[in-house]
Amino acid sequence: MNKRLGIGVIGLGRLGSSYAKYLNGRIEGAHLVAVSDVNEVAAARLGAELGVSKQYGRYQDLIADKEVEGVVIVSPTSTHQEIVLDAAKSGKAIFCEKPLSISLEAARSMLRVVEQAGVFFQMGFMRRFDKGYVAAKRKIEEGVIGTPVLFKSSSRDPFRPSLEYLDPAHSGGLFVDCGIHDLDLARWYMGEIESVYSIGGTLAYPEMKEIGDIDNAVTSLYFKSGALGTIDLSRNGVYGYDIRTEILGTEGTLKVGYLRETPILVMTKDGITHDTVPYFTERFEQSYITQLQGFVENVQQGKAPSVSCADGVAALQASVAATLSYKENRPVKIQGDDLVQGDDLV
Amino acid sequence: MNKRLGIGVIGLGRLGSSYAKYLNGRIEGAHLVAVSDVNEVAAARLGAELGVSKQYGRYQDLIADKEVEGVVIVSPTSTHQEIVLDAAKSGKAIFCEKPLSISLEAARSMLRVVEQAGVFFQMGFMRRFDKGYVAAKRKIEEGVIGTPVLFKSSSRDPFRPSLEYLDPAHSGGLFVDCGIHDLDLARWYMGEIESVYSIGGTLAYPEMKEIGDIDNAVTSLYFKSGALGTIDLSRNGVYGYDIRTEILGTEGTLKVGYLRETPILVMTKDGITHDTVPYFTERFEQSYITQLQGFVENVQQGKAPSVSCADGVAALQASVAATLSYKENRPVKIQGDDLVQGDDLV
Amino acid sequence: MNKRLGIGVIGLGRLGSSYAKYLNGRIEGAHLVAVSDVNEVAAARLGAELGVSKQYGRYQDLIADKEVEGVVIVSPTSTHQEIVLDAAKSGKAIFCEKPLSISLEAARSMLRVVEQAGVFFQMGFMRRFDKGYVAAKRKIEEGVIGTPVLFKSSSRDPFRPSLEYLDPAHSGGLFVDCGIHDLDLARWYMGEIESVYSIGGTLAYPEMKEIGDIDNAVTSLYFKSGALGTIDLSRNGVYGYDIRTEILGTEGTLKVGYLRETPILVMTKDGITHDTVPYFTERFEQSYITQLQGFVENVQQGKAPSVSCADGVAALQASVAATLSYKENRPVKIQGDDLVQGDDLV
Amino acid sequence: MNKRLGIGVIGLGRLGSSYAKYLNGRIEGAHLVAVSDVNEVAAARLGAELGVSKQYGRYQDLIADKEVEGVVIVSPTSTHQEIVLDAAKSGKAIFCEKPLSISLEAARSMLRVVEQAGVFFQMGFMRRFDKGYVAAKRKIEEGVIGTPVLFKSSSRDPFRPSLEYLDPAHSGGLFVDCGIHDLDLARWYMGEIESVYSIGGTLAYPEMKEIGDIDNAVTSLYFKSGALGTIDLSRNGVYGYDIRTEILGTEGTLKVGYLRETPILVMTKDGITHDTVPYFTERFEQSYITQLQGFVENVQQGKAPSVSCADGVAALQASVAATLSYKENRPVKIQGDDLVQGDDLV
Repeated sequence: MNKRLGIGVIGLGRLGSSYAKYLNGRIEGAHLVAVSDVNEVAAARLGAELGVSKQYGRYQDLIADKEVEGVVIVSPTSTHQEIVLDAAKSGKAIFCEKPLSISLEAARSMLRVVEQAGVFFQMGFMRRFDKGYVAAKRKIEEGVIGTPVLFKSSSRDPFRPSLEYLDPAHSGGLFVDCGIHDLDLARWYMGEIESVYSIGGTLAYPEMKEIGDIDNAVTSLYFKSGALGTIDLSRNGVYGYDIRTEILGTEGTLKVGYLRETPILVMTKDGITHDTVPYFTERFEQSYITQLQGFVENVQQGKAPSVSCADGVAALQASVAATLSYKENRPVKIQGDDLVQGDDLV
Repeated sequence: MNKRLGIGVIGLGRLGSSYAKYLNGRIEGAHLVAVSDVNEVAAARLGAELGVSKQYGRYQDLIADKEVEGVVIVSPTSTHQEIVLDAAKSGKAIFCEKPLSISLEAARSMLRVVEQAGVFFQMGFMRRFDKGYVAAKRKIEEGVIGTPVLFKSSSRDPFRPSLEYLDPAHSGGLFVDCGIHDLDLARWYMGEIESVYSIGGTLAYPEMKEIGDIDNAVTSLYFKSGALGTIDLSRNGVYGYDIRTEILGTEGTLKVGYLRETPILVMTKDGITHDTVPYFTERFEQSYITQLQGFVENVQQGKAPSVSCADGVAALQASVAATLSYKENRPVKIQGDDLVQGDDLV
Repeated sequence: MNKRLGIGVIGLGRLGSSYAKYLNGRIEGAHLVAVSDVNEVAAARLGAELGVSKQYGRYQDLIADKEVEGVVIVSPTSTHQEIVLDAAKSGKAIFCEKPLSISLEAARSMLRVVEQAGVFFQMGFMRRFDKGYVAAKRKIEEGVIGTPVLFKSSSRDPFRPSLEYLDPAHSGGLFVDCGIHDLDLARWYMGEIESVYSIGGTLAYPEMKEIGDIDNAVTSLYFKSGALGTIDLSRNGVYGYDIRTEILGTEGTLKVGYLRETPILVMTKDGITHDTVPYFTERFEQSYITQLQGFVENVQQGKAPSVSCADGVAALQASVAATLSYKENRPVKIQGDDLVQGDDLV
Repeated sequence: MNKRLGIGVIGLGRLGSSYAKYLNGRIEGAHLVAVSDVNEVAAARLGAELGVSKQYGRYQDLIADKEVEGVVIVSPTSTHQEIVLDAAKSGKAIFCEKPLSISLEAARSMLRVVEQAGVFFQMGFMRRFDKGYVAAKRKIEEGVIGTPVLFKSSSRDPFRPSLEYLDPAHSGGLFVDCGIHDLDLARWYMGEIESVYSIGGTLAYPEMKEIGDIDNAVTSLYFKSGALGTIDLSRNGVYGYDIRTEILGTEGTLKVGYLRETPILVMTKDGITHDTVPYFTERFEQSYITQLQGFVENVQQGKAPSVSCADGVAALQASVAATLSYKENRPVKIQGDDLVQGDDLV
């Protein structure tokens, strides 16, 4: 057995705490040696709960810790750049939760830093580790559906997150916060995107107008290959957390996703009914775990990251282009001049 | 019981022959008195088979027939205008299969003629009579999903129709021939469309480039209400005839459509498998019958048509706008100057 | 084209009226020439509606009609024997709705009469003509599931029929009235039944105790081949008309049946819901039509009946054995002494 | 936080090793302090992997360990009695995997011992902890389906386990080894069983005749309440691990189970296909974890066991009765003289 990889988790919010727990027993080859959060009480509490004695308030101290070989960054997006910079300088292996940044310029800068430092860097896009999505990738590679010609994806939250969370100044807005997952999948399955066109609106939650964000959107994708795509995003999938992707090819179609959480059907005079997937934790817990497992294995075995920093930049770029398209009501090219001003969007 | 309505069917191709058969026994209150086709042999053969003694080569003779109170027009689209004109002048009740025309100008002219003549005119859009689509309309009206905010629809043919059929000079191209159904549903469920944006490509059948049409497309819809839409069209739904529509509202979602034709599941080491819907006949036969039944009842009871001539114009207008948007790669407004040149598209 | 087969329908209740309508336009090669019912008013009304001028009060007159080449018997079960006898003597082709009789002795006598007369006789078991059930038969014959080892079938009514209808003196009781369909399928797919064991109870409708029938039952089947079976019957499938059959083989499993009538899913905070199949008309209308079509074709083409009189006797025999088993709480062999007293059951 | 419960796992086969892993990090409040297996190498290896320093070859040493407060018994069934006896004497809390024993007399003796010792004892029936099965229990209690009248359950292995495993001398045969799960659920949902009737056969794997067991069976259940049941068991569910239960009530029906493992549909010219659940690990892993979590919580909080030793005896009793019924081809009462000789079955 390999020596276990010493890991520090930075950012102990909801997802960060989960990551820390997974790393503390469910990820083979991982050794959670430190946790860090600006909220030192939270860090101390989680550390105690997990039996992790190193609990830092300052992430810099975690990075400086010799036992920490890899850092898992789950802190607020606005802090990613600084932390990645420091971690890269210290030569740590890095896992960074999506999005890299809400600023395209910052993201590009992070990519340069990571490349120059030559450190291992894996981007967090957990959907790529879901069994259904993985199976779709493999089926496409096996030629089961021939040449993919249409990518179709939906992301629906079961309720509106808090306005504080949604504030585009932090979240980057609907296309960056939510659509980035679908845009990453689009690239993964179909190759590079040539241009996008978005429409959207504040249709379900008028209060979102105050923070300047929309709650529903549709983005058309034109891929460099000539293939087509459409993504719809919504904050009002009130029936459940509904994440679906479909890839239509010349020889067949793949549909990824499911809606029923509990394996029971209730059949009465009111019809046949089943429940739905509550939220992302239920839908993607195993994907988060598989993702972290992959991170650890890739580092230990000297493999390339499953999702690279460049993938993170590219997905952000598409998200920013989608946002710009919505704002200016015109098709926007992913590369070239169209995005010059994209960085000032949020 | 009312006296039965004397009906003549004009155009005895595949769908026309089916219509004639339905009218000859399965539509209450209808009396099929005459059939007509430029192919007189075909008319004679079908007439003999159905026991309909009046078999005309010239549709004008059918319209002139005193026993014919209503005409069902299922002839090639290019003949619709002339026939509707004649039937309107003769004061016959008219049922006209979609599309009205592939020319927006012609369609608008037909609308004027029909309105001036004051005859009953019902447009053929059979999906509106499918049990699933009808149920969706009712559920929306009942408020089950709150305010609709997203319309999402897919039409996929299981194979490429003949190039002769597809030739845009006759069919109007993908958006008019195929997309018009989805665009009609869009208007029915969501209200008027403000603008559209289309992308497309010849991705599965290179030979379609010769006739100047595409085989896959995605159209974004922006409704006057502010709601959003996306339609994807494909000629390569090789797994089956796949017609699906989804309406997302503030309180819920409706999904219309199904894929399994035969109620059997085969479960072996290769997995769980079922078949698919072969084609439109299987999917919509009952809708065609219900549609004709409604036509007859509406005429007999002096009701308004279920789908009006103006609906036919509006759906064509949206189809033409979608085509123009694809050709010019820009959002196109449904009304106003944007469509001035739309009539020259095909 | 063949000369059409002159047909007379005897018994114009709900199902008989439907049969008459199907035969009057939807069955190729059939010519409905006469209808008959002891309720002469009903016969006259339906005859007028369908444009069938021969409307008899006495079935004997219908049988005596020279134009009538085939009779379709849908009258009450208690009249089947007499009518079959007369029709056989007159050399008419016979279609008889299930069950042949509720008396095993009577049924056996009918079989002898039919065989001696040498007339064409087809038993009515419409499930054998359902697309799903037909596909299952074909898949088994193709070896898709290897050797069948388990037959599993369910028949559930969505509500309790009237006590008058259910009275075992007329209906034969739950196993004969309802279970006979599953027992016929059991023989069709699996071969002859060796023995049965039934349990049952009046569990949902206490008032059924008054007429001496049960509303729920489970019957185990042991086939001559050594294969196994289980059938459950219920009058309280209150969520819908639920008819399902499953055949497990050494290489796979087939499942026949479906529950959703309308192709729409409603997705709200209350979950994902669809409707159910209301009743047998919706579930099996096409099967009834296909069944009659087959009857007409078999007669015209001199083919053997799809379902023979002997099949009718055998299914009844199994139903009577299931009833006896329930009454005596012991396994009952289908053939031999066990059934000697079975004929006195009802 | 409570002090964690010191636990020792006895028996480190496939399931025992999994239990040990779950208890070593995924069960809150549990502290895995020792493992034991007659295969000392296996015990040492697993102990090392999990960082559990106490690795016993003799289970007696584990029981004698003061740190061990609760024992989890996953050793071969034939050893259960002796271990339970020793653990009870030592006053340890006991979790025992199903079945208690294959001997009814032994099981009854274990129940007496446990009751006399007054120790906590929880029976392992993991299905009771599956989300679907739990939801069904709750829905029944809430009255969603009215009064339950029919219990219907299926257990199908995707392949034949080894003949060594299946040997009835160890496994107890099909009804005890496999059917006991369905019989336990039957009691849980419907109350006590009055009598059973079984049929069965060696239909898929002739080689099973050598060990004297069958590979398919159907058992009818008659409950004390008057309700009915049917269970089918098969070793040749070659398409996947298929575990399904249905409860029909006077007001509705519940269906528990699912078949698709990976959330992807493949749609090609060959139809629409999905995969299936491979085996019990995939289907019930979370149930095993929830079950152990419940065991630990019940012990710590002084609650009654979720599944009692008496439940274990009762389920075995029904399994033995089902076996006897099959062997003698007659209905067998669960209590009373019928089972006097049942203990000698295997």
